[in-house]
This record gives sequence, C-alpha cells and structure tokens, in this order.
Amino acid sequence: MRVVVSITRKDGLSDPEGATTAKALRQLGYPVGEVHFGRTITLEVDAADAAAARAAATDMCTRLLANPVIEDFTVFVSEGEAVR
Amino acid sequence: MRVVVSITRKDGLSDPEGATTAKALRQLGYPVGEVHFGRTITLEVDAADAAAARAAATDMCTRLLANPVIEDFTVFVSEGEAVR
Repeated sequence: MRVVVSITRKDGLSDPEGATTAKALRQLGYPVGEVHFGRTITLEVDAADAAAARAAATDMCTRLLANPVIEDFTVFVSEGEAVR
Repeated sequence: MRVVVSITRKDGLSDPEGATTAKALRQLGYPVGEVHFGRTITLEVDAADAAAARAAATDMCTRLLANPVIEDFTVFVSEGEAVR
C-alpha cells in the first residue's frame, strides 16, 4: 500500500532555507511572501488495510522519519497508485 | 495566494536517501518496499488569480526551485489557507 508522509517544521521555528529562497525569488522579480520547505516521503508499506498502513507509518515517523521535537507530520494512505 | 510545489526525482534515478531509509526501516522490523524522498515548497504568491499564480510558480520551478534535468515538479494552487 502506498503511503505518503509530509513533514513540515512546526510553526514559529526559523526556516533559513525558505528565507534564502524567498530572497532569491524576490531578486528574480517574483512577488512572493513567505516560503517554507518541507519533506515528502513515499513508502510502499506491506499492510492488511489502510488503517494498519496508517498506524505503521505514524509509528515510523515517530521513531525514525520525523523529529517530533521540531517537526509536524501528516500521513496520507492511498490504496492504488494515484498518489506519488 | 498559497502555492504548494512538490518536487520529486524523475523515475529511474537513484535515490540513496530513500534506499538507506528503507534499509533502516526494515532493520526496525517494518515491512516496507521502496522508499522515495521528495521536497515540498510552500509559497505565498501575490497573483491576480489561480492561473497567474500557477504560471508564476511553474516559472519559478524552472528557473530556480527545481532541477529540470533530474526532477519532476507538480504545482498545487489553493485560494484559501487549507493546503499547508
């Protein structure tokens, strides 16, 4: 089962990558406000159903994929191949 | 207008970060197959409508945010604050 995990920094934490990118985009003439970077992890999980896949992915995020001190994560489960 | 850009590597390119993560997850006992990493960039774009915001974001990706040689990108435009 395909699981997509989206990991973003918690609100209020500084995002130097985003700030630098925002500055570069403005110098190129694009009218942008805030820019934030995040990570997406796509996993093929061997699970009986969507609920089990979601539980496994949440556990993986807490133990390995995300840093719960500074990051928030969202788990999306897809039965088919639509989500990439 | 809020624009979310999802950037992934093109199919067939090696993803060492994903391969290492897959190995680590298997060692922790999770039944995972392939794992792929991508980036998400959330931008506040000052544009008249959704089409203009999408065009600006596509242009930004081509010029600065993505590497079109090895990466694919998808642009999502949201009028409100729902997409993060």
